[in-house]
Amino acid sequence: MPKVVALAGGIGAGRFLRGLARVVSPEDVTVVVNTGDDIVLYGLHVAPDLDSVTYWLSGNMDRERGWGRAGETFRATEQLRALGADGAWFGLGDLDLATHLYRTQLLGAGSTLTEATATIAGRFGVQMSLLPMTDDPVQTHIAAEDEGFDYYAHFQVYWVAQRGRGDVRMIRFEGVEEARPAPGVLESIAAADAIVFCPSNPVVSLGPILAVPGIRDALARRRKCAAGVSPIVGGAPVQGMADRLMPAAGLEVSAAGAADAYRGLLSGWVIDEADRGLASRIEATGPRVAVTDTIMDDDAKAAALARTALDLALA
Amino acid sequence: MPKVVALAGGIGAGRFLRGLARVVSPEDVTVVVNTGDDIVLYGLHVAPDLDSVTYWLSGNMDRERGWGRAGETFRATEQLRALGADGAWFGLGDLDLATHLYRTQLLGAGSTLTEATATIAGRFGVQMSLLPMTDDPVQTHIAAEDEGFDYYAHFQVYWVAQRGRGDVRMIRFEGVEEARPAPGVLESIAAADAIVFCPSNPVVSLGPILAVPGIRDALARRRKCAAGVSPIVGGAPVQGMADRLMPAAGLEVSAAGAADAYRGLLSGWVIDEADRGLASRIEATGPRVAVTDTIMDDDAKAAALARTALDLALA
Repeated sequence: MPKVVALAGGIGAGRFLRGLARVVSPEDVTVVVNTGDDIVLYGLHVAPDLDSVTYWLSGNMDRERGWGRAGETFRATEQLRALGADGAWFGLGDLDLATHLYRTQLLGAGSTLTEATATIAGRFGVQMSLLPMTDDPVQTHIAAEDEGFDYYAHFQVYWVAQRGRGDVRMIRFEGVEEARPAPGVLESIAAADAIVFCPSNPVVSLGPILAVPGIRDALARRRKCAAGVSPIVGGAPVQGMADRLMPAAGLEVSAAGAADAYRGLLSGWVIDEADRGLASRIEATGPRVAVTDTIMDDDAKAAALARTALDLALA
Repeated sequence: MPKVVALAGGIGAGRFLRGLARVVSPEDVTVVVNTGDDIVLYGLHVAPDLDSVTYWLSGNMDRERGWGRAGETFRATEQLRALGADGAWFGLGDLDLATHLYRTQLLGAGSTLTEATATIAGRFGVQMSLLPMTDDPVQTHIAAEDEGFDYYAHFQVYWVAQRGRGDVRMIRFEGVEEARPAPGVLESIAAADAIVFCPSNPVVSLGPILAVPGIRDALARRRKCAAGVSPIVGGAPVQGMADRLMPAAGLEVSAAGAADAYRGLLSGWVIDEADRGLASRIEATGPRVAVTDTIMDDDAKAAALARTALDLALA
């Protein structure tokens, strides 16, 4: 079985990785996860993408909503809102809270984020190896203008508190210049038979991973065995706010624009049937293109998509 | 209306203070609350006695169970147990968690515990002024022996994790020597028309308050206007574990032994009808004794008891 490294954001990656788990041995997969969305709320270390991947891979996800856990309740958050606490715009579920409490406890006892992530994923029964992109603090910040009001804030403030309103002017990954790849990230990339870029937001999900010094160079050296899946279908993201962020990053909102975000890192790129007309334009920039149905309604469709991406990477 | 200072632990105090709120103007009452039971769990500052008093005074208490909130659920704690987190022996309710999260946020933003307590009590609509005994860290520790196994641990470990098993050898209030009374504590005591010792555990509820340097002396100066209510009825605590702790503190488990814990601080002491036989023995040590029904089944009975204690203090 091939050794695979997957680069992952949250929900799109979660769906895709459930498919990947059906076509390779999960123990042979290392998932490098974005931590730029991480935020400290009430003293708790909240890591949305690590948790999304954990919940999806362990079958605890809410498939309809996409984020969070199935059967979730929000009693603590409703109470925080009643009390008027800052940060209560972020809906922490009661079950989800346990993950943040446990992570905060492990970090407080001296674990690195890498160690805490391995412990938590293990307790959830996740068989893939989950690695944060870095153990160092990196926070994605957004500069936006909303009806004449300019602000610069954590990505979660833009996306959750402000509900993605307004025009995004700039995206910055605060702290990334000083961040080091988490232990195992560069080694896994160097040793992989295949590298897969999950269908995640290229700007704020995989963008922070590529911005950690050393990771982009390590991936460029393995370009020949790397393939990705476009998160943009028919000129719009399957979910999320990539359409609002890509222009600020100088990227066209299309399957071609998403591929551009990974220029020099891919030998294969999977696009949806809806984007067949972009194939030759994308191939002119480097990667071979495969065209298929990329909408992952269920695990079987996710597995077929993962197979297509993997075949391109291993070709 | 008289200005009143009440010294309070958790549940017994909560019941009593609901009665006191019916016989004096709540705005004229300052409640000095034990913080020796406070514990940091998952990075959160948990303050059981401050919260018990807040929940009881705001009508959010679970009257049957005594501790915690009415309509509480424990989904986060059940999940923490499933994950195998340390500290999950402590049952943090989902609604209760919001209080700890909010307090931790306020403390993290630079509030003192006094300020955070005022904010939280205010949001709950509590009209009495709640003061922690100190803003400094004090932790009640218990040395106990359980079937040949000796341990020395936080009071909550003894009471909740170990379920109060074993013989208590020693009680220590870690950090109390360096603790200062919270702002307002000494001033309130000096300015009070009446001081009331709530029917709380004399060793681990009111004991830590008295051990904060300066508080016992301030109370001794106001002895003439101070009365207390025995938490011991018929040789046993109405609730809790005072019977297991009083011997280790050199106190008889009786309404007389509880009065002894406050030797030199009281001019009045309220005991139950069941303990009428102890009245003259207690009066020989100083305080005048009032005998009444001290079991607070409801707010009306708590109000009658508060009236009796207050009359003794104001006599």
